[in-house]
Amino acid sequence: QQPPCTDFDMAYFHSYAHLSIHEEMIKDRLRTETYRSAIMQHQDYIKDKVVVDVGCGTGILSIFCAQAGAKRVYAVDASDIAAQANEVVKANNLSETVIVLHGRVEDVEINEEVDVIISEWMGYMLLYESMLGSVITARDRWLKPGGLILPSTATLYMAPVTHPDRYGESIDFWRNVYGIDMSPLLPLAKQCAFEEPSVETISGENVLTWPHVVKHVDCYTVTNQELESITTKFDFQSMMRAPFHGFAFWFDVQFIGPGTFSANGDSQSLEGSQRRKRANPNETLVLSTAPEEPPTHWEQTLIYFYEPIEVEQDQHIEGSVTLSQSRENCRFINIHLEYVSGGRSFVKESVLR
Amino acid sequence: QQPPCTDFDMAYFHSYAHLSIHEEMIKDRLRTETYRSAIMQHQDYIKDKVVVDVGCGTGILSIFCAQAGAKRVYAVDASDIAAQANEVVKANNLSETVIVLHGRVEDVEINEEVDVIISEWMGYMLLYESMLGSVITARDRWLKPGGLILPSTATLYMAPVTHPDRYGESIDFWRNVYGIDMSPLLPLAKQCAFEEPSVETISGENVLTWPHVVKHVDCYTVTNQELESITTKFDFQSMMRAPFHGFAFWFDVQFIGPGTFSANGDSQSLEGSQRRKRANPNETLVLSTAPEEPPTHWEQTLIYFYEPIEVEQDQHIEGSVTLSQSRENCRFINIHLEYVSGGRSFVKESVLR
Repeated sequence: QQPPCTDFDMAYFHSYAHLSIHEEMIKDRLRTETYRSAIMQHQDYIKDKVVVDVGCGTGILSIFCAQAGAKRVYAVDASDIAAQANEVVKANNLSETVIVLHGRVEDVEINEEVDVIISEWMGYMLLYESMLGSVITARDRWLKPGGLILPSTATLYMAPVTHPDRYGESIDFWRNVYGIDMSPLLPLAKQCAFEEPSVETISGENVLTWPHVVKHVDCYTVTNQELESITTKFDFQSMMRAPFHGFAFWFDVQFIGPGTFSANGDSQSLEGSQRRKRANPNETLVLSTAPEEPPTHWEQTLIYFYEPIEVEQDQHIEGSVTLSQSRENCRFINIHLEYVSGGRSFVKESVLR
Repeated sequence: QQPPCTDFDMAYFHSYAHLSIHEEMIKDRLRTETYRSAIMQHQDYIKDKVVVDVGCGTGILSIFCAQAGAKRVYAVDASDIAAQANEVVKANNLSETVIVLHGRVEDVEINEEVDVIISEWMGYMLLYESMLGSVITARDRWLKPGGLILPSTATLYMAPVTHPDRYGESIDFWRNVYGIDMSPLLPLAKQCAFEEPSVETISGENVLTWPHVVKHVDCYTVTNQELESITTKFDFQSMMRAPFHGFAFWFDVQFIGPGTFSANGDSQSLEGSQRRKRANPNETLVLSTAPEEPPTHWEQTLIYFYEPIEVEQDQHIEGSVTLSQSRENCRFINIHLEYVSGGRSFVKESVLR
């Protein structure tokens, strides 16, 4: 019944046995403190309840939930880091509360229903690593009706960007190298720099206009099937005259309690590029990886073109993007972009590996 | 007669087909400008002479030599980057002077003696990548007696270092993670952070005392055999009371002309830890990667211990280090360290991969 554990899965789990990846995530204060705040914000709900932490890593979120008064926390991780999490739990005298389970959520047994699912499952451009599927599995196996999922929603955005400094450093640099004309290297430079997506931090000033929502995920209702391939059409209107260098992708997640969240009604109104990117922080906690927000370890994911396109103010940039799980490795993302600007059509294929 | 081209060699050459590695080297201004200055300093010698550039990459050093008046420059590279170098040469109208040869120096044919060998062959901690062997091959195949090799000498140094910030960030961090005691992770943290050498930039303030010369290489006389395994004994005396966290390795190279260089007599006087690290810049150009110098893309190579050792001012740190080519891949370096401090003995094995 369970999907098979592939060599790619094994390699993926093994990568989380090294501590540096956990160190990077934990040291991302915006990430870790927003999760802690969200747990504390929902303390009344979590108190005396059963929690499952999907992909617990070092166990930090499970311990936050125990501190918030959870009756029992199942901390599940398929990586060997689980043994370490268990030692951390013991050192903090929480063995009565936090039960570490070393295995996939598809494979481990939890013999009760759970009230809360917490998970930090987001990858680069939200869907890299495809870990949301494990949250879905946990939800469908164990979550009580009316239970809480943190985060509760996630939204992937895209926007056209200008980045002349980056283009200059990587490409124009070769036109004059210590007085030598190295422009024959330009095609190779473009390929090496811009063939594949680039995870890097840009600023709000690089963004040409309001973002478009590529995908809004309601964690209560999302299915694995709808994540296999996502297609959306966009129609941007540049707010300035600038060289258009590519598209940036980023995401945010919200931590909405079951009291305030309507599982069916809410998501429709969030669609569309005019949506405000950040909810009122007094109402709903939002963890945003947008360019105008403080940087996180997710940064932004950039897809650059080989040639910039000059756009005028108010010029439209229309097209579509399809994100699909790579057949090579379902944790990778194929990105198929089609766009039209100034009467010219372009196609760009890339893979986030 | 030629040594075989292994899969490791193929992978090594292939890594240089990507432009980013050349971009990083060329953008290291201290590296590139010191090479250019050295070529210009020896312009009188190079003028109307035959040069071979071992591992030419994008061809930048070959073009500098052509600009210095060389009669002919053989630009040799086993990587596919050679085809790009050839295009750069054509774009700069130097096809009459610069002849790009795509292949290993062991395999390509040059049907004349050469007057000058230039090469940027240095890897991390000088010997990583083992590219000096290709310079030796070129020298033994083609260099005229009395010819010039740039750089002419290279020296690898080591010194004990203190780096409490680094140790704190990587290790002590786990003692209190958002109020949670994660000290059970300390053994894994030490292993993940410090099992293998770390290429990073430290400053002169991290260095506990004068460096020790691990190896001085005279490029005119060095043999492949003496590079296979290098052992040296050291006796440092700490200039301060501090936690001793590990050893740093760095190197410098000198560009000495055949007129000023005595091929046999010079190297002895350079040995010993009291040697001045930088020659007078008016006499001899030196490219130094020492911690007290401006940073380069080589940074320094650090070997950290799992536990710091408290040393007093004037305390001795004695021991030995053996650097040997890895049997796994001769471009890797095995580092065997033995050291005694405060009456305790330690051994550390690591591999620079």
